[in-house]
Amino acid sequence: MATITLTTDFGTLYPASMKAVILDICEEATIVDISHTIPQGDILSGAFALYNTAHLFPKRTVHVAVVDPGVGTLRKALILEAGGHYFVGPDNGLMIPAAHRCGKMKVWIIQVDKLFPEISPTFHGRDVFAPVGAYLASGKKPEELAKPSDCYVCLHIEEARVKVESMRGKVNYVDDFGNIVTSIPARLLHNIVESGDILELEGNEIRFVETYANATPEETVALVGSHGFLEIAVSMGNAAERLSISGHPEICLRKVTSTRNDE
Amino acid sequence: MATITLTTDFGTLYPASMKAVILDICEEATIVDISHTIPQGDILSGAFALYNTAHLFPKRTVHVAVVDPGVGTLRKALILEAGGHYFVGPDNGLMIPAAHRCGKMKVWIIQVDKLFPEISPTFHGRDVFAPVGAYLASGKKPEELAKPSDCYVCLHIEEARVKVESMRGKVNYVDDFGNIVTSIPARLLHNIVESGDILELEGNEIRFVETYANATPEETVALVGSHGFLEIAVSMGNAAERLSISGHPEICLRKVTSTRNDE
Amino acid sequence: MATITLTTDFGTLYPASMKAVILDICEEATIVDISHTIPQGDILSGAFALYNTAHLFPKRTVHVAVVDPGVGTLRKALILEAGGHYFVGPDNGLMIPAAHRCGKMKVWIIQVDKLFPEISPTFHGRDVFAPVGAYLASGKKPEELAKPSDCYVCLHIEEARVKVESMRGKVNYVDDFGNIVTSIPARLLHNIVESGDILELEGNEIRFVETYANATPEETVALVGSHGFLEIAVSMGNAAERLSISGHPEICLRKVTSTRNDE
Repeated sequence: MATITLTTDFGTLYPASMKAVILDICEEATIVDISHTIPQGDILSGAFALYNTAHLFPKRTVHVAVVDPGVGTLRKALILEAGGHYFVGPDNGLMIPAAHRCGKMKVWIIQVDKLFPEISPTFHGRDVFAPVGAYLASGKKPEELAKPSDCYVCLHIEEARVKVESMRGKVNYVDDFGNIVTSIPARLLHNIVESGDILELEGNEIRFVETYANATPEETVALVGSHGFLEIAVSMGNAAERLSISGHPEICLRKVTSTRNDE
Repeated sequence: MATITLTTDFGTLYPASMKAVILDICEEATIVDISHTIPQGDILSGAFALYNTAHLFPKRTVHVAVVDPGVGTLRKALILEAGGHYFVGPDNGLMIPAAHRCGKMKVWIIQVDKLFPEISPTFHGRDVFAPVGAYLASGKKPEELAKPSDCYVCLHIEEARVKVESMRGKVNYVDDFGNIVTSIPARLLHNIVESGDILELEGNEIRFVETYANATPEETVALVGSHGFLEIAVSMGNAAERLSISGHPEICLRKVTSTRNDE
Repeated sequence: MATITLTTDFGTLYPASMKAVILDICEEATIVDISHTIPQGDILSGAFALYNTAHLFPKRTVHVAVVDPGVGTLRKALILEAGGHYFVGPDNGLMIPAAHRCGKMKVWIIQVDKLFPEISPTFHGRDVFAPVGAYLASGKKPEELAKPSDCYVCLHIEEARVKVESMRGKVNYVDDFGNIVTSIPARLLHNIVESGDILELEGNEIRFVETYANATPEETVALVGSHGFLEIAVSMGNAAERLSISGHPEICLRKVTSTRNDE
């Protein structure tokens, strides 16, 4: 059994070409879509989607990730190995947070010109990353496809300055429902916020709750999401629209009233 | 071979976490998406999607369904067995119509606290229902995971009062194309309507036809859909938009002129 | 191993019924979605999606394709075999370009009335094409399901008149990002356009480039896409919206300035 995951910004048509190429090399592969609706060229959103999911798969899974605004330029193509998982994709930081989460990381640079002398300059997902992923799933070693390296583009999805009165970070991801996932990890929030505290973000009052079911309809709440980061949500509504958030802006949540102070 | 289906309101990112957890427990599982675009928290739409599809799968299929506005509250988590199919999901009626369609139903309450002492309060799809589904697919028995019960939340998707001059019911589902699936089952329409009859719904004239190909462009028609219920559609258009239908309102179709009367 | 692909205009709910029927007949099948978001009834877009992808799959793959505005009428249902691939779908041209790309084509007419005496007049995807695809994947021969024929509806996706000063064709496909794929194949463009040439389409200036990475943000460019056809794109934008293109209109690109002339 070999599992291959796909994370791309390719939309609805082009992923099938990658699956065709994979099955043509490794017909017994199980292919799982992580997402194909990453906003085009948005490396951080892609990195978050992969970080949120990859480590949950069985060991020996090959994660092929292609959010690649630099396709057709000189950016390198990488294989990573970490904690028994493989990652295949462009050298732009996309795979780094997910790989770090799986374990200690080894890096190889794919020998693109040698392996694929005649390829489309626009679709490395199909012509480079899919076949390399399938070769790994078939049992080939990274050394057969790539050269060891210790140089790669880095990317951080944890970014936070947390004090008693304020929490600063940035937006990592806006999900389909407009929930805003921040870069502030749960482990920094112990003894800082608790259920019932009122926070403030650019004039909006936000109540800290434990679960969605504790929110009243239309209420803006903050909670620790299933991904382990602070998340801002509107019950039965769209937080990103209400707070006019798009992309990955910096945010600062200020604590207004504390449950603890009232005790 | 073990087939597991997924029906959720999770959108594009979160289902992959469920698949990861399933494959980590049961790597040979075949996972099939029924839908991940059920409107958020809309139990009836989820129940209809599952009812429409589950019974067609091979026996021994495990259907994991998560439209779960009560996640994080005291609502129970269930395993159902009916006609050789398993169902795993929250106790809110979601799985009941599909299970009834498969056969006589047995019910168990999942021992959540015992099986999963430390879980996310927001993502039982990943942390409870996916692993329980995977355990069943791997051959575990419901008794190993859950306690027998005969108490559960019910839900009906067949709801109709049909007379010679009118048909009452409610909206079960609005599909991607704006076709309105009602709760009025085909078997109640024999000798009531036939091809060419003109119906009326809140001032809109609707012709009863046998198949989409019989409609003229832009015409509003009623027909028995592939799911076995009366459906209202606009040829090359969107019936829900034209008739301003959203959610699950009650509807009453009145018969205006009958083909039979003209004979 | 048996791979079955699906290409439909069914949206998010109905494809799962086809998968259920397939797995009930051939539980070991690997099912791959090519697309389920073909615009409703748009045979040419469906044909292009299939043409772009089918030949990349391993031999013995069964491609089930259902964009079928004529369902419920007398249109025929076909099995095609070409280059070791099978195709199953309606006789409306949908599968012809993809099959031709795979190799020399054999045609059979499915014996629908004999195989499926009682079927839904609205959902042949589930009730005819899915089971026939699954039977082929299970090893049945076309002769057991269908009668040989040499008569079928044709469709061309290559349509171009290319001269030194202009290129005429039509729009084959508009992808999720608004990129406009034309019917003008790359092989006709040698010695006609090269990197840096300026083209004009209905008053819009378009620069011919080699890869997306060569475009400046918001620039309208033309390039040879990964599918092998001339494509018009707006970097970080939507070409179909900017050029008001929808459906499959004829287009004429005129050459305004040539890199070659400047040498």
